[in-house]
Amino acid sequence: MRITAGDVADLAAGATLLGSGGGGETTNAAAMLRHALTRYGPVPLLRAAELDPGGWVVPVACIGAITVMVERPPSGPEFSNALHALERHSGIEALAVHGLESGGINALIPVAAAAWSGLPLVDADGMGRAFPGLDQTVFNLAGLPSAPVVLSEPSGAEVIIADTDGAGVERLARAALPALGGWAATAGFAMRAEESREHALPGTIGFALSLGRALRRAQRDPADRDKLLAEASGRRLFTGTVMQVRQRGRGGATHGTVTVEHAVTRERTMRLEMADEYLLALDDGAVAARVPDIIAVLHARTWLPISTEAIAPGQHVDVLRLPAPAALETPEAAALIGPAAFGLDLPGDGRDEGDGGPR
Amino acid sequence: MRITAGDVADLAAGATLLGSGGGGETTNAAAMLRHALTRYGPVPLLRAAELDPGGWVVPVACIGAITVMVERPPSGPEFSNALHALERHSGIEALAVHGLESGGINALIPVAAAAWSGLPLVDADGMGRAFPGLDQTVFNLAGLPSAPVVLSEPSGAEVIIADTDGAGVERLARAALPALGGWAATAGFAMRAEESREHALPGTIGFALSLGRALRRAQRDPADRDKLLAEASGRRLFTGTVMQVRQRGRGGATHGTVTVEHAVTRERTMRLEMADEYLLALDDGAVAARVPDIIAVLHARTWLPISTEAIAPGQHVDVLRLPAPAALETPEAAALIGPAAFGLDLPGDGRDEGDGGPR
Repeated sequence: MRITAGDVADLAAGATLLGSGGGGETTNAAAMLRHALTRYGPVPLLRAAELDPGGWVVPVACIGAITVMVERPPSGPEFSNALHALERHSGIEALAVHGLESGGINALIPVAAAAWSGLPLVDADGMGRAFPGLDQTVFNLAGLPSAPVVLSEPSGAEVIIADTDGAGVERLARAALPALGGWAATAGFAMRAEESREHALPGTIGFALSLGRALRRAQRDPADRDKLLAEASGRRLFTGTVMQVRQRGRGGATHGTVTVEHAVTRERTMRLEMADEYLLALDDGAVAARVPDIIAVLHARTWLPISTEAIAPGQHVDVLRLPAPAALETPEAAALIGPAAFGLDLPGDGRDEGDGGPR
Repeated sequence: MRITAGDVADLAAGATLLGSGGGGETTNAAAMLRHALTRYGPVPLLRAAELDPGGWVVPVACIGAITVMVERPPSGPEFSNALHALERHSGIEALAVHGLESGGINALIPVAAAAWSGLPLVDADGMGRAFPGLDQTVFNLAGLPSAPVVLSEPSGAEVIIADTDGAGVERLARAALPALGGWAATAGFAMRAEESREHALPGTIGFALSLGRALRRAQRDPADRDKLLAEASGRRLFTGTVMQVRQRGRGGATHGTVTVEHAVTRERTMRLEMADEYLLALDDGAVAARVPDIIAVLHARTWLPISTEAIAPGQHVDVLRLPAPAALETPEAAALIGPAAFGLDLPGDGRDEGDGGPR
């Protein structure tokens, strides 16, 4: 399978849904990716098992402030530059680019990195959705080394973080970002193809692509909405009107609480907690979905996704729950990416199970 | 020549004088260095010309907040760790450690790095005194590459800055410091021995050592003060009482203006401008010394140096001027390390020449 310029709109749509309201607005990245695929041709999408087991695969992504990325969008070569800097630093040669995050912008970035560096892309990533931290990956959960990680700025300066763990990478990378201009291309968490096969989340780029195709069909024809839900093992949790968006403290516009009033039964309300992503959906106080579940908020009429940045009172919305990959639902994962990792206290024991387990 | 544990007090005293009021309080670093030299034995001090011209020499230093360094002092191995991380990153092998800065703490750090890594030390540095910026070196003036530079924190995490110029290294290093805990061991500006021979300031570590020996003699016996001034081609500019220390804006305690009233002629005053280091001495408005001149303020009775942090009203002081190495007095150097580089407007054309040119 190959990803072509004609696939970019679908990939971007699916990645936005998997962003759980976060992960970055994909318009600029999609334009950049379309440009890269037109210039360099389609990118082969492989399974890790198709590569030499001992060969290196390298996750590539971008991190930083989305607002800055909109003003000064990525152009493409910064991602292959980051990859090559990591290869030089570590003395390795990458057989393929790999996904880090399959929700939001970062579902598109590795495709562009592959195009610019003339490599195939492994159809796998470390999150199966979007998370705010570089260390919130199944790679980190599996105990794979987190360093070295390269941060590359468009002007070419590089910061390499070495000899530290996932939390250290996250801490040092965030600290460097302002001096790098707000965002950076990043390559790191390099692993052998066999380690990807064993520990990464397989098929997630392809899943984003087919989910996006289904979403765009459902946007054109509401009759196709149930097909999307079936394909993603998802469920519509709630339909109603956003009544209030209460922003919280230091996190900025995307941190806070959203209250949605039910379209039919006005007394019934859904409360959404958000911090970059939508993290928790409470239906009249009962947990209907919680991180790592993917919670998507869509305009009810068009099924265009609404990000945590764009949500506003008066919007008529559908709230969906898509299950996360099973590897994110283990007890070990809970401390890194579960509700407690985001400071959320859940009423009772957590979500009522039985309406679609992990995918 | 070899530097032994018995030399540390002299080296620290001379380095403090060359710090021009800045460069960091040397007590902790001196204790650490004494420990290293006792544990690993004396460090050979070489001229660059004694090494294979094509071999690599690596400046080592520490950068960051002096206040934090006092609370959490360096222990020694972080400096050889930084050196080895640079060797690994660049694929080079160091023949010797090299000085970066010969004023303040950083005259001692390369000696410790050499002891911990079992290498000799080249008797040369890039500043011939203390400067606040990593890029304020004769290496940078000579167009030698500034990157890569390793910043190593005591816990072992490393940040490597690559593919940028001197200003980029300075900017990215400062940005990383808070996340590294406030200060870091740094290795970088690696050069060939022949490049050190051609561009570095030779003999500066040995000069700090013999200057310190002279200073400690002069502290014990005021009759030896003139010998120190002769050895350093220095001059006593002023003797008087500190009347006022006016601190300025964002720079903290070490940024501002000091007014000294003459001991005999009360109407005559000296104004000292400081920003980390003492940068300018105006004797009744006339320039008596200006950066890169070294301006030292000493307790008049003991000749113990007073840093820009410690200067306070009521102190009876001698103000000395020691000339900087000639390489810092070129027109090209002025933009990087002259008064204008520090935002100082000099009355007239600059210092009245003729009372001791550059050393």
